[in-house]
Amino acid sequence: MCTLQKLIQDLNITDFAEQFYLKEQLIISVGKTSNHVVLMAQLLSQGKCHGIHAFIVQIRSEKDHTPLPGISVGDIGNKIGYNAMDNGFLRFDNVRIPRRNLLARYSRIEKDGTYIPAKNPRLAYGTMVFVRALIVGGCSKSLAQACVITTRYSAVRRQTEIRPGGEEPQVIDYQTQQEKIFPLLAAAYAIFFTGDVMLKEYVRINADMEKGIFDEMAALHGLAAGLKAYSAEITSNGIDKLRRACGGHGYSHASGLPKIWTYITPACTYEGENTVMYLQCARYLVKQYAQAATGQKLVGFMSYLNNPVKQRSALNDTLNMSDMIEAYEHTAARLIKVAATRMQSLMKSGVSVEEARNMCGVPMVSAAKAHCEAYVVKLFSSVVNRNDLEPSVARVLQTLCKLYAVYGINERLGDFIHDGFLDGQQADMILNQTLSLFAEIRPNAVALVDAFDYPDKILQSCIGRYDGRVYEALYEYAKTSPLNKQEVHGSYYTTLKPLMEGKLKFDSLSARL
Amino acid sequence: MCTLQKLIQDLNITDFAEQFYLKEQLIISVGKTSNHVVLMAQLLSQGKCHGIHAFIVQIRSEKDHTPLPGISVGDIGNKIGYNAMDNGFLRFDNVRIPRRNLLARYSRIEKDGTYIPAKNPRLAYGTMVFVRALIVGGCSKSLAQACVITTRYSAVRRQTEIRPGGEEPQVIDYQTQQEKIFPLLAAAYAIFFTGDVMLKEYVRINADMEKGIFDEMAALHGLAAGLKAYSAEITSNGIDKLRRACGGHGYSHASGLPKIWTYITPACTYEGENTVMYLQCARYLVKQYAQAATGQKLVGFMSYLNNPVKQRSALNDTLNMSDMIEAYEHTAARLIKVAATRMQSLMKSGVSVEEARNMCGVPMVSAAKAHCEAYVVKLFSSVVNRNDLEPSVARVLQTLCKLYAVYGINERLGDFIHDGFLDGQQADMILNQTLSLFAEIRPNAVALVDAFDYPDKILQSCIGRYDGRVYEALYEYAKTSPLNKQEVHGSYYTTLKPLMEGKLKFDSLSARL
Repeated sequence: MCTLQKLIQDLNITDFAEQFYLKEQLIISVGKTSNHVVLMAQLLSQGKCHGIHAFIVQIRSEKDHTPLPGISVGDIGNKIGYNAMDNGFLRFDNVRIPRRNLLARYSRIEKDGTYIPAKNPRLAYGTMVFVRALIVGGCSKSLAQACVITTRYSAVRRQTEIRPGGEEPQVIDYQTQQEKIFPLLAAAYAIFFTGDVMLKEYVRINADMEKGIFDEMAALHGLAAGLKAYSAEITSNGIDKLRRACGGHGYSHASGLPKIWTYITPACTYEGENTVMYLQCARYLVKQYAQAATGQKLVGFMSYLNNPVKQRSALNDTLNMSDMIEAYEHTAARLIKVAATRMQSLMKSGVSVEEARNMCGVPMVSAAKAHCEAYVVKLFSSVVNRNDLEPSVARVLQTLCKLYAVYGINERLGDFIHDGFLDGQQADMILNQTLSLFAEIRPNAVALVDAFDYPDKILQSCIGRYDGRVYEALYEYAKTSPLNKQEVHGSYYTTLKPLMEGKLKFDSLSARL
Repeated sequence: MCTLQKLIQDLNITDFAEQFYLKEQLIISVGKTSNHVVLMAQLLSQGKCHGIHAFIVQIRSEKDHTPLPGISVGDIGNKIGYNAMDNGFLRFDNVRIPRRNLLARYSRIEKDGTYIPAKNPRLAYGTMVFVRALIVGGCSKSLAQACVITTRYSAVRRQTEIRPGGEEPQVIDYQTQQEKIFPLLAAAYAIFFTGDVMLKEYVRINADMEKGIFDEMAALHGLAAGLKAYSAEITSNGIDKLRRACGGHGYSHASGLPKIWTYITPACTYEGENTVMYLQCARYLVKQYAQAATGQKLVGFMSYLNNPVKQRSALNDTLNMSDMIEAYEHTAARLIKVAATRMQSLMKSGVSVEEARNMCGVPMVSAAKAHCEAYVVKLFSSVVNRNDLEPSVARVLQTLCKLYAVYGINERLGDFIHDGFLDGQQADMILNQTLSLFAEIRPNAVALVDAFDYPDKILQSCIGRYDGRVYEALYEYAKTSPLNKQEVHGSYYTTLKPLMEGKLKFDSLSARL
């Protein structure tokens, strides 16, 4: 039987955490450190542009680390966080790159300048899918860390007696606090399992590709683009919500939350900006929709587009997962149809395909989000219903999964009741069930975050400590602040004292500062 | 006739900006600077607790700035931003505060310990309302600054040719980029006008209060609590969205966006944590609902709770503002009813009022948000329909106001179509109109942000410059980074060089760091 601990250990969450810990200390990048770079640049040959390719280029001398002739390189200055990452600028002025510096596994260039393209353009998708799967996993881990801190702190922190004169409850007992934490805890698990499945799918499909079988790579590529954006968006917004759920302490570096957030929010931007990724996913979906519309049978996860359109959902307060998955797939299919038919009608009215695509950007993004959400709900459900899970573990994970599904419907209710697939009564039931699930998860919340098994040295959080000694830790942290090295700070002598003695005028102060 | 410039100048936006600029440099607070504090503490007398009162307390010597006996005080360490704010910790050990140090304008204590309470407990509301009105205004100004930067940058930045070989469009021409910026630009104006009206209401109602008239203060207090939370939430989430809309540059301090965000996101927490504020607002609303249910006529903005419940909205593609306001008020009234009836049925089933309140936390917050949104939409509409506005100004502001209203419906569509007040066809129309309004606002977008008249020295943004010379400024900014003082950084000699020469093993490196 598979315990929760084992389920998580299988996925190497702590290994990743260790990497995170090290990464914060040692990141080699272009600003001041690298002497060679992989440069993405247009390949021009025989007067023709063959698009972006990767070249290995030496930028600094191996002897004394000075930039090579024609190269300007340096640091780009401070960022909101992640300052251990040595981001830099790089400028080339008439720098020649030898032909053999092209990374030529798939496409190459002959001595005479003849360009030999890759056998299949989809070969380039492999690495992108791999990196995006890693990002999905990374997002879930950052979100999990923030959940650990916020859940533990909320179980320690007490606030505002409910009855006058009574004991102040732990803030985690407030429904509004549960609403902030528990859906994100569910999301951390959901995205975590998603990242794992994506990696396994990548390995399987990549092996096929090496054998020349390219059938599934386009589907995985479209999905991976969307899931990268979806995970990064939930994670970035979620950690910020959790930070605020810790009140003023969340704003302090003492909580560890700012560092987690600044570390992962760039995932919305790097390796394909989120909106661009959603649009890439949506283009794949719209194509699939067109194929389904002509009666073609779609394979794998896309097959829901072949389903006959049902009028009404049977979802009731038992929250049957197959009813919920059906609701998500129905909604995704409807939103893909909205984007696709808008595209078609614009093009029929004479708008070019490129313009039409831009004029459908917002509905396309909505379609992609709905598709990703349907995928994650279905995947999460399949994991928590594995029959090798220990029954008590299965029960609590199934509750989390139900919350994930039902909370998502409540959040984007309009999309689900727009065509009457769910009605107002079902919407009321969904709100009631969401609130009941909060109460059901409450007793297991601390155990669910402890299960991630992040040691204190990785969380680096005074308020998320395993032993719950939050206030002692905060006080110790404050005492180590550099400003506390002197009881009376130097600015007292230079500014405050002369000001109080009338030797410095307040008006002249702002000019001096 | 009132021009846009005049409308904005009347509200002193640039004055505020100047204050912001100075504030970042000179903030006196408890950590290392203050020698006196206003302390909020329980007042105990004759064995009875009279609740929280404000006391003025000296904490440091006026002679040498050392903490007085029994007082521990110091800095609390680094935060994610706003580090010029001298936040500190403060601990008292057997410190006696003289009786006359109580700030005793409204309530006081006699020499013999007799407590004289305030004539009316609502007197204490005044300052809270005033400060919250200031926060609403402050939020709008931070959001406006972020809109200036993002709009200008999006008009300079070009990305991805729409047609192969064609010119890359300005990113502001992408519908998805418009979706990120324009609703927040509308919100900046909406919240800006809201803060102004709140201040004027405060002045009027406070003058009444000085005369002993307390009728309207409870209503304003409830509303101000909600509007503070609503403005801070939109602003904090909005600036972060705008930051991400600037891609990687938004993450760099070169953009100015991190500083604006870290400066204002604490507004979600200080002066009443947002969720607590929404709940405070909701408690007032539920009370008002109960009064309306007994047939009592409500005054002012609350009077919509007296409206007979209509079944269907007449909203069509002319986007009549009165139809939109009606839809917002209908939805707010329904959500207040949901919270109130849930409360009642819980209490009927034997749950205590305190427990029932907690078990309605989430629906209460939803009700408060809907109420605040209805208020802001109505107020925004009344400003942009003032008949002293220059017609061209009125036209563009009315478009912004329509976008604000229609975008809000689309965002929280479920609440509006839940009971069929709007139907699926109207929802489709709303999406179409939202996209059309983006296109309508596009030509005026840069002018709408220039109108805020923030000088470059306040924005401190390479990418939000008035002259649009983004890339030159970024390059200059990068060159001034302290790491660029030396072409070859010291770490090359201590680490990289020995590593490359085999004199340092990679494995021992992480241990050394």
